[in-house]
This record gives sequence, C-alpha cells and structure tokens, in this order.
Amino acid sequence: MSKPKILIQIDPDAHASVFDAVVAVDSGVDHLLQYHGVEPTQVRDLVHGAIFTRGPADLKQTAIFIGGQNVDAGEDLLRCVTDSFFGPMRVSVLLDANGANTTAAAAVIAAARHLDLRGSKTLVLAATGPVGKRAARLLARQGAHVRVGSRSADRSKTLRNQLLEQVPDAEIEAVQTATGHEVTAALDGVQLVIAAGAAGFELLDGPTRVAAESLQVAIDLNAVPPLGIAGVEVMDKGQERDGMICYGAIGVGGTKMKLHKAAVQKLFESNDQVIDAEEAFAIGQTLE
Amino acid sequence: MSKPKILIQIDPDAHASVFDAVVAVDSGVDHLLQYHGVEPTQVRDLVHGAIFTRGPADLKQTAIFIGGQNVDAGEDLLRCVTDSFFGPMRVSVLLDANGANTTAAAAVIAAARHLDLRGSKTLVLAATGPVGKRAARLLARQGAHVRVGSRSADRSKTLRNQLLEQVPDAEIEAVQTATGHEVTAALDGVQLVIAAGAAGFELLDGPTRVAAESLQVAIDLNAVPPLGIAGVEVMDKGQERDGMICYGAIGVGGTKMKLHKAAVQKLFESNDQVIDAEEAFAIGQTLE
Amino acid sequence: MSKPKILIQIDPDAHASVFDAVVAVDSGVDHLLQYHGVEPTQVRDLVHGAIFTRGPADLKQTAIFIGGQNVDAGEDLLRCVTDSFFGPMRVSVLLDANGANTTAAAAVIAAARHLDLRGSKTLVLAATGPVGKRAARLLARQGAHVRVGSRSADRSKTLRNQLLEQVPDAEIEAVQTATGHEVTAALDGVQLVIAAGAAGFELLDGPTRVAAESLQVAIDLNAVPPLGIAGVEVMDKGQERDGMICYGAIGVGGTKMKLHKAAVQKLFESNDQVIDAEEAFAIGQTLE
Repeated sequence: MSKPKILIQIDPDAHASVFDAVVAVDSGVDHLLQYHGVEPTQVRDLVHGAIFTRGPADLKQTAIFIGGQNVDAGEDLLRCVTDSFFGPMRVSVLLDANGANTTAAAAVIAAARHLDLRGSKTLVLAATGPVGKRAARLLARQGAHVRVGSRSADRSKTLRNQLLEQVPDAEIEAVQTATGHEVTAALDGVQLVIAAGAAGFELLDGPTRVAAESLQVAIDLNAVPPLGIAGVEVMDKGQERDGMICYGAIGVGGTKMKLHKAAVQKLFESNDQVIDAEEAFAIGQTLE
Repeated sequence: MSKPKILIQIDPDAHASVFDAVVAVDSGVDHLLQYHGVEPTQVRDLVHGAIFTRGPADLKQTAIFIGGQNVDAGEDLLRCVTDSFFGPMRVSVLLDANGANTTAAAAVIAAARHLDLRGSKTLVLAATGPVGKRAARLLARQGAHVRVGSRSADRSKTLRNQLLEQVPDAEIEAVQTATGHEVTAALDGVQLVIAAGAAGFELLDGPTRVAAESLQVAIDLNAVPPLGIAGVEVMDKGQERDGMICYGAIGVGGTKMKLHKAAVQKLFESNDQVIDAEEAFAIGQTLE
Repeated sequence: MSKPKILIQIDPDAHASVFDAVVAVDSGVDHLLQYHGVEPTQVRDLVHGAIFTRGPADLKQTAIFIGGQNVDAGEDLLRCVTDSFFGPMRVSVLLDANGANTTAAAAVIAAARHLDLRGSKTLVLAATGPVGKRAARLLARQGAHVRVGSRSADRSKTLRNQLLEQVPDAEIEAVQTATGHEVTAALDGVQLVIAAGAAGFELLDGPTRVAAESLQVAIDLNAVPPLGIAGVEVMDKGQERDGMICYGAIGVGGTKMKLHKAAVQKLFESNDQVIDAEEAFAIGQTLE
C-alpha cells in the first residue's frame, strides 16, 4: 500500500491560506502540513525534511505547495525549494501564489475554446500585474501576437523585454493604455482581450468595447464591481454579448478551481515536477 | 460521497488550544486547520477562503470554531466572522472561547434536571465573569428570577442592565456579594446557586450554604481547591449533601464535554448556524 | 472502536520540523497537531489540553513528540511536559530533538551487531555534543568501558562527571582528542569508535584509523563531506574496510528511521511512557 499523501503548504503570509488548504483537502491530500510566515532562509530545512524521510519509491507521496498573496515572494520561495533538492532527492512542487498561475492559465484556456490562438492578435490589459504577466506569457507561448497594455508606457516596455527573454521568438508589442484613445488604438485588429487589473478599476468601457470590430472574445478577471470590462458580467462563461464571447471572473473561476485541484493531484504522480504557469496551463488543457 | 469535514480553528492565543483540537478530532472532523494568534483584521481572508472554495451543496462540510482563553477576544472574532459572509456564502461557526458557552450551558442543564427553572429563584455568584454572565443569561431566558452577584455592586448593576437589554422581559436583580452577610441575604428564597468564580476563591462557605433553607441545587464550576462552594466536591454529579443536590466542576464537565462534541458535530448539518451560548444550551437539552 | 491517534508535535523552532511530521504520519498517526515556537512556560496549557479531553481508557490514543534542532531546549520542554501531568492523568511522550536520541541509539545498536559491548573498550569522538553524549551514556549502560573524547580536555572531564552521576558504576575516561597524537593514544586498545561530530570536521584520519590495531568497528555519524572518519563511506552499513566493520551516517540512518517510527508507534501502547535515549535504545533492540 502506498504511503499517505502529504502536502506541505509553504506560505509567506501571517496565516497560511485557508483557500489553498481547502482545495488541497478536496484534491485528496491525506495530511496537510501548514507553514506560515515562511522566509526564504527557512525553506532549506523544510525541504530537507520532505526529501530525507521517505524512500525513493515513496517520495512522490510528498509534495510542496507554495501560496500566499505575494507572487514575487512565492517565486523566491520556489527558487529556494528547487535549490534545496539533491539530484534525485526531490519532491514535486506547485506554485500558485495569489492564484495567479491557475487564474492566468484558466483565462487562456477559456480563450482557446473560441479562438485559434496561434497567429491571433491579443491584448492583455493591466499586463504588468502577476496574473496579466502570466497570461501574456502563456499567449505568447501559444504563438499569439500579444499586446501588453499598462497605464505606464515604461512598465509595458519593461514587461515586453522580460517576455522576449522568456519566449525569444514571441511577437510582443508594448502599448500604453492610460486613456480611452490609447485603449481604442490598442484594440485595433485584436480578437481577444483579457483584463487582469486590480479590483475597482474599469480598464475598458462599454462603447470602446462594442466599437472594437475585430474583437471576438472578452475576458475580465476582476470579480469586484466596477468590473474591468464594462458590460461583461462576473458570471459570464462563454456568454455572447454584442456579438462577442464574454467571460467574467466567476465564469473563469470554475475552470481555475478544477485546474488547481488537478494540479495538486498531479503533484503525486511523480517526484520531479515543478508546476508553474506553463505546466498549469498544460494540465488545464487536458481537462478540456 | 460528501466532501471531508474541515474545521477551521481560529484562536487569538499564541498557540491554538490543544483542548479544542482534541475535542474537534473526537467529534469526527476529518481535517483540522489550526490558526493561532489571529487578529480581528485577519479574519476576513480566512473566512473568504472557507466560503469561496466549495460549492453551495458542500459548504456545510466546512465550519469554523472560535476558541482561546479570552472570551471578549472570541466575541470580537465571531463578529468579524459573521461580517465576512456574503449572503448564502457562509459556513457554520461555533464560539466556545475558554469553554464559557458549553460550561454555562452544561451548568444550567444540570440545574434543569432537578428544578423547573421557569419561575424559580436563582443566584449566580461571580456573575460578571464570562461563564457567570452566560449562565445568568441562560437562566433568564428559561424564565427564572436571577440574582446576579458580584463583589462589586457597580459591576453587578452594569451586568443587570446588559442582561435586560438582551432579555428585556427577564427578572434580574443585582446583588452585592462581598461579605458573608450579603451572600446570606442574596440566598434568601433561592432554590439554585451557581458559583462561576475564578480558581482559588471560596464564594459560599459551608455554614451559610447549609443554613440556606430554600436551597435545593448547588453548582460549583471551580475545579481547583479551595472550591467556590464549601462542601461541594469536584466530582459531585447530582450528589445529595445536607439536603441539597450538588454538582462540582468535573460533575458538570461530563455534560460540558458531550455538549461541546455535539455542538461541533451539529456545525456540519447546515452552513448557516451561529452557535453561541443559547444555541449550545439548546443542543445540550437534546442530549438529556 | 478506539479513538483516532493524535500526536502533538511540540517544537521550539520557528517552524515545526517537517522531518518529524512526515515520520509521524508514516508511523500511523491519524491527526498531527503541530506547535512551533513553543516556550517552556507555554507547555502546561498544551499538556492540560492533552490530558483533560479523553477518558482514562482513551488517553493512550493521545501522545506528545518533542523535536526541534536544539537538544537542550528539547530537554527543558520534556521536563515541563512531565511536570504538567496529574498522577494518572498523563500521556506518553517521546523526546527526539535533533534526532539525537534515535541516532545515538541506532549507532550503539549497530555496534552491538558486531561486538559484545559489555567489557569492550570504546571511544566516542566529539562526545560532548548531543549525539555523542547520548552514545557515550548508552555504551556505559551496556557495560562498555567508554573514553569520551573532545578537543577540550575540560569539556571531556565535565562530561565524564555528568555521565558518572547518571551511570554511577560506569567506567568512563575523559580524553583530549585535539591532535592526531592524542587521537592515536585515545584509540589504544579500543574496539569501537563512534564519531559524533558536526558536519565539516574530520575527527579521525585514514592512516590513524588503519594503524589502530585493536579497532573492529568504526561508525561515523556525519553525512556531509569531509566525513568524520576518513575512509568510511556515508552509505557503509557493516562494510568491511581495512579489516574493520564500517558504518556511515546513511548506513546508520536506516536503523534510526525504523527506530524513530517504532518509538512513535509505541507511544500509543500506553499513556505512561517517557521515551528518552535509553528507552529508544530498548525499542531499537527489539527491532534487531
């Protein structure tokens, strides 16, 4: 009989996320070990406890989840985790700080239901945030032409350069989207728009959206009114509105939750996985 | 198959109570998530993690327990929890900080085995403490005439006014019980006395108790000698002494433990319960 | 049906050891309650929660594990735990801070496979550390003649006096082992050497080891190169090298892990055990 499934929840916040804990339980984890307030320097000891306790055949029954609200902190912790492995002495690890990986992956998966992303023109609004950055990267890897929009021209250019380092053959365009005119220009010829902004900011108004003739799919990842794309409802899940397919945050959320659970379950298939945005996207595609 | 039962233990103390954790396990909880050092401002995120992870049909498989030694802090946290719900997006919650709710309920349930509380005359000593306050309120709601005794006349009056706000048609009398004479006067005509004082204080001496002719039931909730009511033994559970029925802390404790477990189990029957003193008392009555 | 097995992990470190947690799960614990940053003054409340929640017949289903990296802190916590019991109201407790007890026990058990310890001459290098101290004590209790080696003559004498207090009829010799000459002298007539030093220090060089004619068993507990005994490999488990039996840290580690799990399992056989080095050694002997 195989050993119980242990998931080690590593969280930099003052309390380990209840959200992540409930999803872990619902993914079939037998024992959840919750660690909060985890600093990068403390990761090595935690990881060594994970890799030096079970034999090679059972190492896949132990895994690590990195969560918390701060995506940069999560990325730091992920680096510390993978740096602490010793060759084959390792366990699988999933990064989903702030839900950014599963949310971005779910958004791009929703888009792919309606568009052939390869060669399509896409726009990510608030692309410099953690979800936007990942959505843009996933779109680029799928072969889409990606415009990365930000209120700051500088930040969108910085992101463009980062993305080109990660996906060298991508077609990335930095666009400023501070004004309605700029958003209209950014939408020119675009088939897909994803709004990945913070709660409380409308990024695309109704008239601009309706006037965007080429637009076929509009995805808004903000769940708190005012929504990021006017006219899209939070529950929309492939809803047609004004001649385009719409998704709201909760409409994408169902896919995100399934993906999150599938990713946790996949951790226990082998001991050598590192599940970041791209791997989460690949898992999500198998669920379609 | 229904989802595993998850109990989220929210505790303001430096360590989450082991007592509450063991009782949770013995109540059939599948996964206990322990949170310690919880501040009111941190509650919202914890609650959102509880209510936004499972579908409506499964929300009743997640619940919250609020414990810790400080009853006021527990009440604050309970308010924060219920304030964080969104309409039907909620989970059931039990407050039993310092065991005050289950202890007070168990004491009044013990009394009700021997007395018809409606219309009876009762005295709560050290009524201004967390257990005493709740015992007095439960007695008032059962229609008893309640004298609330305190060494401070001011504090007993303040409590009387608080109780009248909570139970407007109650018969509450504030009495000072700093001296033996005052205690004798407070006992006049009384059938039930409950001593809810802190460890180490004798609230009712032997001769005064024996001389109280109307007294039928004496309940002492202090487990550490010197006991609160002289002559009552800590193990007494309906023991007759000097012509009256006696209960000591451990004698009441058995009922308290059963009630505590039943209350945790009841959390998982629906997702809309808030179990405070009155609800705990109602649960305890079904166990008699 | 018996109640679920609850293990309370008490750890003074900033995070409760993942190592100890995984072993607990693999030992069949149903619910692991993890407590980190535990101060001696906080132990009483935790212990009371353990002993005042289940009836006498079920108390053996609750147990305490004391871990963490600091062995002195662990010993303090163990004292606080046993001081918090009330006569028969107690639960079993295992101390294995820094793995010192199970490691020392496993090393002496390995030696006993090849030598009759009673009357044999033994040398412990770095004997004043937590593992070395315990290995020396266990050897002394088995009737071996024990030389306790340290780079500091003073510290080895202090240890000798401590050990004589604990095992009054033991044959203990304090030896300084700061130089190669001193180590050669300390090895004179010795059949068993155990190196219990910190990572990164070679305590016994190759030529000195090979030249020690009486030496039959060499055990090195350091897993990180440079090893403590030159020529012994970390994976050695009873390997013959240069005419002597060798054990490295991982070779001893297998026995240590089995012993650690057996000790956790044994906690749940009765509610009155205190498992320190000697008791761990006795458990380990039953596994041979």
